Amino acid sequence: MNVLEKRIVKDGIVKEGNVLKVDSFLNHQMDIKLFDEMGREFKKRFAGKPINKILTIEASGIGIACVVAQHFDVPVVFAKKSKSINLEGEMYVAEVESFTHKCKNNVIVAQKFLSPEDHVLIIDDFLANGCALQGLIQIVQSAGATVEGIGIAVEKGFQSGGRIIRNLGIQLESLAIVESMDAKTGEIIFREQQSE
Amino acid sequence: MNVLEKRIVKDGIVKEGNVLKVDSFLNHQMDIKLFDEMGREFKKRFAGKPINKILTIEASGIGIACVVAQHFDVPVVFAKKSKSINLEGEMYVAEVESFTHKCKNNVIVAQKFLSPEDHVLIIDDFLANGCALQGLIQIVQSAGATVEGIGIAVEKGFQSGGRIIRNLGIQLESLAIVESMDAKTGEIIFREQQSE
Repeated sequence: MNVLEKRIVKDGIVKEGNVLKVDSFLNHQMDIKLFDEMGREFKKRFAGKPINKILTIEASGIGIACVVAQHFDVPVVFAKKSKSINLEGEMYVAEVESFTHKCKNNVIVAQKFLSPEDHVLIIDDFLANGCALQGLIQIVQSAGATVEGIGIAVEKGFQSGGRIIRNLGIQLESLAIVESMDAKTGEIIFREQQSE
Repeated sequence: MNVLEKRIVKDGIVKEGNVLKVDSFLNHQMDIKLFDEMGREFKKRFAGKPINKILTIEASGIGIACVVAQHFDVPVVFAKKSKSINLEGEMYVAEVESFTHKCKNNVIVAQKFLSPEDHVLIIDDFLANGCALQGLIQIVQSAGATVEGIGIAVEKGFQSGGRIIRNLGIQLESLAIVESMDAKTGEIIFREQQSE
């Protein structure tokens, strides 16, 4: 198990309805040293890619993205979520559906921060059905920029997002892929990955 | 001028209505190296304080807080904004008014992440009227924890938030305090601070 998987086993909480709570270290309270180790691992997995920008989405992707960015020495852009579009200037907008919150949101990035010269690494904390990620991919493509890869902390391997995105031919690296979990016993089974 | 003030002069844009746009390096696209320098400066200004946790608020405070946290070697907790309270478990909640978005929001932190043993540094990107910060202070106090200080990137010195918070006896450090700005000429005047 890698450092994130070990931490999930130690501090993650499995709830009914396939909910995995990792809010004590990943997306409410944030363990910055863990993020730093995740950044080191992403740098290894995306070695050789000409990444010049990281794109993430508010709110819980931002902390991970900023610490990961130090390993790539690049700026971070975070997409904003909004029901309406009230930011000024020219914007890239993608509509995404949130299953957690059961609503549609616009995902928005100012056009001036993405251009055809950009080689983008997308970073987020969770991947389940992949709707938010597909919105981000769409925005990068609208800008004529290149998605060099996607780095995720926790993928729910039993939901379809990972498969859909890998089928697009994009390098998707999830540090922990949960194959199954059991709210009664608290057991979490991860997909085997090549050892680090 | 310090590194942030210089950057504001170089890349900040003054708009009518006392709006200062710093979205190319602070709160939409984020310059992580700049954040690192800001972290070094905050560490200097809060030297000797027994800070064991950083508290910030989504979304644009998170990136700064996470990079600053590396200089203090502490975890970050970010408060969530929500119109309704739908997070599970016991929560600290403060109601704050947003002048930018002209609405009331709840600011929410899970109780398990703040306790009387905590010595908290609050970090945010902007301080204007101080409503969000007062909500964060209220939450720290609800937990019986101590506010050791507040670190802000950009304070609008001509609005009342800074004065209100300093009058509470809290050490408030803003790296750039804008005394006035002129949308026609683009000129920005900063409050004199002790040189670094």
